[in-house]
This record gives sequence, structure tokens and C-alpha cells, in this order.
Amino acid sequence: MTNDELLIWRCIDLARNGKGQVSPNPLVGCVIVKNGKIISEGYHKKYGALHAEADAIEKAVKNGINVKGATLYVNLEPCSHYGKTPPCSDRIIEAGIKKVVIGCKDPYKLVNGKGIARLRKHGIKVVAGVLEYECREFNKFFMKHSTSGLPYITLKAAQTLDGKIADEKFKSKWISSKESRAIVHRLRSEYDAVLVGKNTVKYDNPKLTVRLVKGRDPYRIVLDSKLSLGLDYDLFSDKLKSKTIVITSTKADKKKAKILESRGVMVICAKAAIGKIDLKDAMKKIGKLNIASILVEGGAKTFSGFLNQELADELILFTAPKIMGSGVNTFEGSGKRDFNNAKEVYYQFAGNDILTNIKF
Amino acid sequence: MTNDELLIWRCIDLARNGKGQVSPNPLVGCVIVKNGKIISEGYHKKYGALHAEADAIEKAVKNGINVKGATLYVNLEPCSHYGKTPPCSDRIIEAGIKKVVIGCKDPYKLVNGKGIARLRKHGIKVVAGVLEYECREFNKFFMKHSTSGLPYITLKAAQTLDGKIADEKFKSKWISSKESRAIVHRLRSEYDAVLVGKNTVKYDNPKLTVRLVKGRDPYRIVLDSKLSLGLDYDLFSDKLKSKTIVITSTKADKKKAKILESRGVMVICAKAAIGKIDLKDAMKKIGKLNIASILVEGGAKTFSGFLNQELADELILFTAPKIMGSGVNTFEGSGKRDFNNAKEVYYQFAGNDILTNIKF
Repeated sequence: MTNDELLIWRCIDLARNGKGQVSPNPLVGCVIVKNGKIISEGYHKKYGALHAEADAIEKAVKNGINVKGATLYVNLEPCSHYGKTPPCSDRIIEAGIKKVVIGCKDPYKLVNGKGIARLRKHGIKVVAGVLEYECREFNKFFMKHSTSGLPYITLKAAQTLDGKIADEKFKSKWISSKESRAIVHRLRSEYDAVLVGKNTVKYDNPKLTVRLVKGRDPYRIVLDSKLSLGLDYDLFSDKLKSKTIVITSTKADKKKAKILESRGVMVICAKAAIGKIDLKDAMKKIGKLNIASILVEGGAKTFSGFLNQELADELILFTAPKIMGSGVNTFEGSGKRDFNNAKEVYYQFAGNDILTNIKF
Repeated sequence: MTNDELLIWRCIDLARNGKGQVSPNPLVGCVIVKNGKIISEGYHKKYGALHAEADAIEKAVKNGINVKGATLYVNLEPCSHYGKTPPCSDRIIEAGIKKVVIGCKDPYKLVNGKGIARLRKHGIKVVAGVLEYECREFNKFFMKHSTSGLPYITLKAAQTLDGKIADEKFKSKWISSKESRAIVHRLRSEYDAVLVGKNTVKYDNPKLTVRLVKGRDPYRIVLDSKLSLGLDYDLFSDKLKSKTIVITSTKADKKKAKILESRGVMVICAKAAIGKIDLKDAMKKIGKLNIASILVEGGAKTFSGFLNQELADELILFTAPKIMGSGVNTFEGSGKRDFNNAKEVYYQFAGNDILTNIKF
């Protein structure tokens, strides 16, 4: 790794601290270097708070350190527009920074090169594209949402060796290792929302909260086109029910929707498609709520819906060394699919399970 | 590793050269050490040839090297009975070897500690049980066959992520990577026989030969309880047909059996069990033919038969990063099974596929 790459990597490491807090903003970290030494560091802590560049500059000022003539490292192009905070490029110019090293461009239409142009116009030397792939990957949620309006969608399943997510009685508690479950809880703490289909609620009555690791709970989205689920499930009655969103179609019972709303549950009506929910329309509506990432946790029909409508960006599949013999097929009804040419296929251990991660 | 362990490991490495050649004998390698130096090495090259200990001693004699007072290392207890060759323990005693270091005991009823006792009786110092687990594992085929009369049985399947070995039209050519296929061909060159069910012959017309690596072809066993398969399949008509064994039950067409036999195909009649073949009886009969290891290559019903009758010792499962959506389930009809407490569960890459290996 070059020195520039090491320092951009440091930015990513700082930015990680904002995971689960900054959405739909990107994760950004910043390092300021003068005479070969790091003189200040900062990161974007939460949505609405100071951006990383301003955070690092403010910290230097507070500590009586002069950043004039210094080089600033940041994993994402500094913004050039007024959002929740003033543009970072202006703050960098004012502070007298001499050179800026950037991981990747910000694809958001209000920035998209304008930040870099503004810095250059003011005589600042700019190097862009250091660890570009890694920086884009790191902000995959933001990249997808800010350019398409749709959330980044990951399908997560825990199955047996023979591709079953539940037995014939729809029981699934039996499957994955505690290491796998801890990974799932960490993912929940990082994704804006977790999504399940109606049957998963019916058979598992899941809480979809973060319990096995420390972290904030995600929004919980349920697909229930006809609002046929009873109102006693945990998602509609526990203390986090105001973080539950139900997606229905035009065919849903309006009275039931009212009851849910009176409890604080959000009800969204998406277009119907062949008696089911038009997932693309549903995801657009979810994207508008500034939910930039969704972890889809089942069941089989929901997985197939996202796969068949080509809405999934990633698959995280835990496979346990067990055989079910018969039961519910993980991808029942999905079309044939060959991921050998997928962007990435990688494997990881999770206790006795194997985790297969595919980026489409 | 201790010095003794390193030298036993060297014995295993030498013994490996006999893979696919020595069955139903064990794989054995031998190293002779004097004054801290290896002065001779040998291994069991093929069934009926010199045993490893005799091979190493003969080589020393031929090279004019005196083994008197030397230490002999061998991964398996030297034999004490007359088989195809005179007992190795006698050859060791005659040669004036002072000390013998042994990997594991030979469990075969005619040896089973008698070799060690004989050496000790003649004043030779014996150390036994160096890398014992590894030595037993290395000769797993021999250990199983020599103690139970049954072959060591490994189920090998290539499936998609969603646990399918073929699509709805029973097509399976689509599944595993070339790296996985090369591993399968290497396994075929090491197992005494490959076994498939009737449907696999019907839908795939496989050759079951070794093509992607160098090595000898295995025996090819077909389960066909009623001899319902036609006679034109490769297994019954290619130039290796004398290495094909068909297992039928008492319900088979005697005339068809005669035709097969006239072509050089061996036909074995096993007991029937609920209209099917009694696999335990079939395996006993195969074991009597000195076939000490079988790689079961499908299909789903055959896998389930071996699993449900608890006849399988090991599972080698290649999973490709593909989704079939619907098709033939790999373990259709197998009972529920949890391998978290299996003797060994390990994973290995095979190109883009993942190999799951479970020892029951």
C-alpha cells in the first residue's frame, strides 16, 4: 500500500464508527496531515451532525493546531451544496488546506465532481480515486440510494446443507450456529431496515431486534398485501412498534390499516402486481422515507420475489452442516441463476456454518 | 512436531505413492534412521508387492548399507502373519533393527498388537501411537474394511446453493466448477469403486472414469434391483465394462443378468428390502470382493438409502454459487440430521464452489 492508500484506509476506519447512525448520508472519515504527521482526525457521527472534514478541521482549531498548508484525506468527495450543514469544500478552502486526497467521487447529483471542481478552482491540489473500489464498496448503501432512490437490498437466509430454511411444519429455530446469529444481529444494527414476508411473521413471530451484539435496532418492514396478519404479533405490539412499517397493496382492509396506524405502526400502500405487492414500487416508497438499506430475512416467497424482480444487490447465505430431508426450499420459485460471473463470490466461516456472500 | 512425528509423517508421504494400487491392503511407508540420518526408505507399491518395511530393508541391502542397530519408522504396525508375503516383523528381527517407531496399531484380527508383541519378544524397543489419529485417518479405507468387512463409503454430490443436484428435466451437467470436477476424478482414482443408482445411469449415462487427472479407473457399481436398465449405456458397453458390477435383487430378470455376464459385467444378487436392494447386504458382498472403498456419486434416492441405513462414513458435498429454483433435491427423503457433532466438519474451496466435508 502507498502512503496515500494507508491514509484513505484510516479514513474508512474512522468512518466505520458512524455505521447505523448516518443514513441516508454516507459514512465518511477524514485525516489531516502536515509535515508527514497526522495532526487531526474526524468522522461523520450521525445524520445531521458535522461532516467528517468539518469535524477534523474543528478539532484542530479547538486544539490550537494550524491546518494551513496541510493535506486533507477523505474517503468521499467533499460536498459542494448546502444540506443539513454548509458545504465542506468551502470549509476546506477557508481553512487554507493545500492539497486534498479523495477516495471516490460522490455520485449524488448535487455533488458528482462539483466538490472537486470547486476545490481546484480555489488553487487546491486534488488527487481523486485512491482505493476507489474499496471506498465505493464501503459506502454501497449510499451509492445505491443516492443514485437510484432505491434502498440497497441484501437477502439473508440461514439454511441447511440441502437448501431448506424450515421443516415441513415451518419450524426454523433449529438451523444456524450462534456465530451466524451474532453476524445477523450485527447486520441488523448496520442496515436501516429488516424486511420479512407475511408467512415469516405468521410462523416465527420474530422481533427482528438487535440482541446478540450492541447496536441500534433497525426499522422492521413487513410485506402483507391484504393485511391478513393478526394484530397480536410482536412487530405490531412490542415497545418498538413505532419502528414497524407494513407494506400493503390497494387490496388491504382500510379499517385494519387505521388500527395499526393508531398504534404508531406506519402503513404504506404499494401498487399491486398479480395479486401481490409490486416490490419495485414498494422499494421506491421505502427509499423516499430515507431508508437506504434493507436486510431481507425471509421467507422463501419473499426471497424469490426480490430475485425474480431483480431487486437484490447482495446475498448472504448461512449454510449449516445439517440435512432436513424435506421442508421449505430456500429459493422456491426463483428462476435458474448462475452467480459464477457475479461481481464477487466469497466464503467465510461462522462457527460450524459456512457463509456464502454474493454481490450481484 | 517432534522428530518421531516428522519421520512418521515422512512414512505417510511415502505411503501416498501407493494410493489406488494397494487395496484392500493398507497404505504403508517406512523410513530407516541410523546415527540421526535417514539411510533407507520404502513403501508398499501395489497389492501383492513387498511390504514397506521389507522394501526399505531390501533397498538398504542392495545399496550396501548396514541397517543393524538402526531405528525403523512405519505408519502402521508391522504384520506378524503369512499373507501374500512373509511377516514383516520377522524381516525386521532378522535385519537386526534395534528400535521400531509405529504410527498406529493394525486392527486386522490377524495382527492387532501381535506384530508389536513379536518385536518386543525379540528385544526390540517399540514406540507405538505416534500421530496415531492421523495414521488411522490416512488408512481409513483399510481400517473400516479390515475390521467390519464393509467398504468405507463416501457420498459425493455436486449441488447448487439451494440444494438441487439436477433441474426438473434431471439435467445436471450445469452444476460444478472444473476445479470440483478435477477433485472428483482424483477421488475416483483413489477409491476402489464408484457407485451410482439406476436413475443416474438413465439420465446421465456416465462413464465414471478418471479423465481430468492421471490415475487408474475405479470399479463401477450400479444399483438396479430389477435390472430394468437397457444394455446400451456406456457402463455396460464401453471397453471398461469388465470393471462394471451390477447389484440386483432376487427380483431381477435372470436372462438379462446372463447377457450382462456374457459381456464381462459382474452381476451380484443382494437381498431385497421393501422392493429395493438391502444395501447392508449388498455392501457385505462388495466387501467380500476386496473392494475396500466406495465413492457414491448419486442420485438423490441412492444418497438417502445410504444415509437412512447409516452406511455412509463420510460426505463430500460440492456447492456451486447457483440457484436452481426447483429441481431434484440432493437428499430427498433423508431423515433430519445434525452434523454439528460429527467427528469432523471442514470446508475447502474448489474454484468458485465450496466443498463441505463431513466425517460421521
